[in-house]
Amino acid sequence: MAVSEFGLIERYFKQQTVNNPTTRLGIGDDCALLSIPAGVELALTTDTMVENIHFLANANPEWLGHKLLAVNLSDLASMGAKPLSVLLALTLPSVDEQWLSRFAQGFLNLARRYNVDLIGGDTTAGALTLTVQALGLVPANTAMKRSTAQIGDLVCMTGLLGEAGLGLKIAQGHYTCADGEAALARLHRPEPQIAAGLALREFASACIDISDGLAADLGHIAAQSGVGACLEWACLPLSPQVKHYIATTGDWQMPLGAGDDYELCFTISPAKLKSLAIPYTQIGIIDQGDGVRITQSGSTQPLSRQGYEHFSQ
Amino acid sequence: MAVSEFGLIERYFKQQTVNNPTTRLGIGDDCALLSIPAGVELALTTDTMVENIHFLANANPEWLGHKLLAVNLSDLASMGAKPLSVLLALTLPSVDEQWLSRFAQGFLNLARRYNVDLIGGDTTAGALTLTVQALGLVPANTAMKRSTAQIGDLVCMTGLLGEAGLGLKIAQGHYTCADGEAALARLHRPEPQIAAGLALREFASACIDISDGLAADLGHIAAQSGVGACLEWACLPLSPQVKHYIATTGDWQMPLGAGDDYELCFTISPAKLKSLAIPYTQIGIIDQGDGVRITQSGSTQPLSRQGYEHFSQ
Repeated sequence: MAVSEFGLIERYFKQQTVNNPTTRLGIGDDCALLSIPAGVELALTTDTMVENIHFLANANPEWLGHKLLAVNLSDLASMGAKPLSVLLALTLPSVDEQWLSRFAQGFLNLARRYNVDLIGGDTTAGALTLTVQALGLVPANTAMKRSTAQIGDLVCMTGLLGEAGLGLKIAQGHYTCADGEAALARLHRPEPQIAAGLALREFASACIDISDGLAADLGHIAAQSGVGACLEWACLPLSPQVKHYIATTGDWQMPLGAGDDYELCFTISPAKLKSLAIPYTQIGIIDQGDGVRITQSGSTQPLSRQGYEHFSQ
Repeated sequence: MAVSEFGLIERYFKQQTVNNPTTRLGIGDDCALLSIPAGVELALTTDTMVENIHFLANANPEWLGHKLLAVNLSDLASMGAKPLSVLLALTLPSVDEQWLSRFAQGFLNLARRYNVDLIGGDTTAGALTLTVQALGLVPANTAMKRSTAQIGDLVCMTGLLGEAGLGLKIAQGHYTCADGEAALARLHRPEPQIAAGLALREFASACIDISDGLAADLGHIAAQSGVGACLEWACLPLSPQVKHYIATTGDWQMPLGAGDDYELCFTISPAKLKSLAIPYTQIGIIDQGDGVRITQSGSTQPLSRQGYEHFSQ
């Protein structure tokens, strides 16, 4: 029997029931149909992951399914949006049913945890390329943006910095340590900071998820807000493992340049910070300076945008 | 200077101004933001085009940009939705600025014609893979579906059948004819039938766009509606060029199996057909039979789902 593209999508992904009352029509027609409640805005984002660029050819397919969805949900988190539904565009070199089944499991397990409906997609032949389009809802005029940081705001972040970067060093065999499990887990199975994004929405003046590295991502906030940012090295939330990596290698810029942490970096006025009920670390300030800088032992230097960028020359 | 992924998207695609008042935030943040009016449903679809599968390596980039958007808008047309905005995920083997500029021109020219905002995207390195997610609006509970054809309905279609199929034969060098320009244009620069979709919404009982071939696509309507469909060969709208191709080659199934026409195939009750103000051709009937059949010279035979399907074995 021919395994058609329609059959593929249906067999592995239609198992997911539609959870959201907003989903009027899911997989199986030319379009999905959503009914959007009044008073909200729709947040939309798309992220692609490509074999040998974003993951290795032998990557665990369940982790891959998880991460593909997680990086898209992370963009929703950074705006303070509640995830609603996703479309999945799969380009696959061949039909490997075991791979598909495990990929779908990782993808759908995370989708269920956040009550996200998979409402449609497309399957094509070609080099392994995975694209998700994610939709979320946010009350009108409350979404957090990159462009609204104010001079005098504090720069804060959720979670730890450089964990995924350390995980990548370990996964690539460039570094060995006995207690690297948490770092590897953060690299392979990042957690979108949805709850933090929702909690920050009332208080933060700007927000971004740390996907390309703190220096690059905070650089976006600074550039788009027309402000500067100065980080305080001693305040960065580094795990003992990352501190040990830096002590061993001297590579102190790793946590600033490495991407894939998917924590939220946000700016907030000192007055509002007091009301914040989620765990965070204050790591710097927004000022009138140029770009992103860092203070170490009393000396301040500029940070280049060292984030991971494709096609950089 | 490093040509960053952000710079790429911005340089070639941000030139498009935001046209729709529903677009609250376009390219440049973690998500785009849309404000959706009350009383409408959101129609969403995604389609991917892959080099050497959907187009040749030396394809005209302007045509490619046009076609990528057209095939997605065609899915909106088939539901009777008005196009609103799109996200674009580009995976490119390298930065070819001339290619990007021409691709963007073809994409944005079509977008402007339908007042479609490009609200976001992602650019990654890898084998050439192009994915669009398109959003449209349709008044609540009026979208045309595949699953609602009724026994006794007539099967109709817009435009001509098999034009893109003939264009493909010519483009691949499998057939030569002196007057194949229209067929080649239909293959390379298909026109999404947006106006027809909007006009049909009040009248048609079911609708699909002819992307995988009439036999396959009408087969979806039949299967999802739990009905059969019988086509009348003599009624099919074939151009003189397609008729000549069939007379020369004997390949009468080409127009039934070839995809890429992007005309609309719809079902409609005889009473409602009288009110229809757009050009169409009646090509068959919906009945209680099994699958899709065709009557030629008084003899009826089943049509297999000969549409183009990836991974078919």
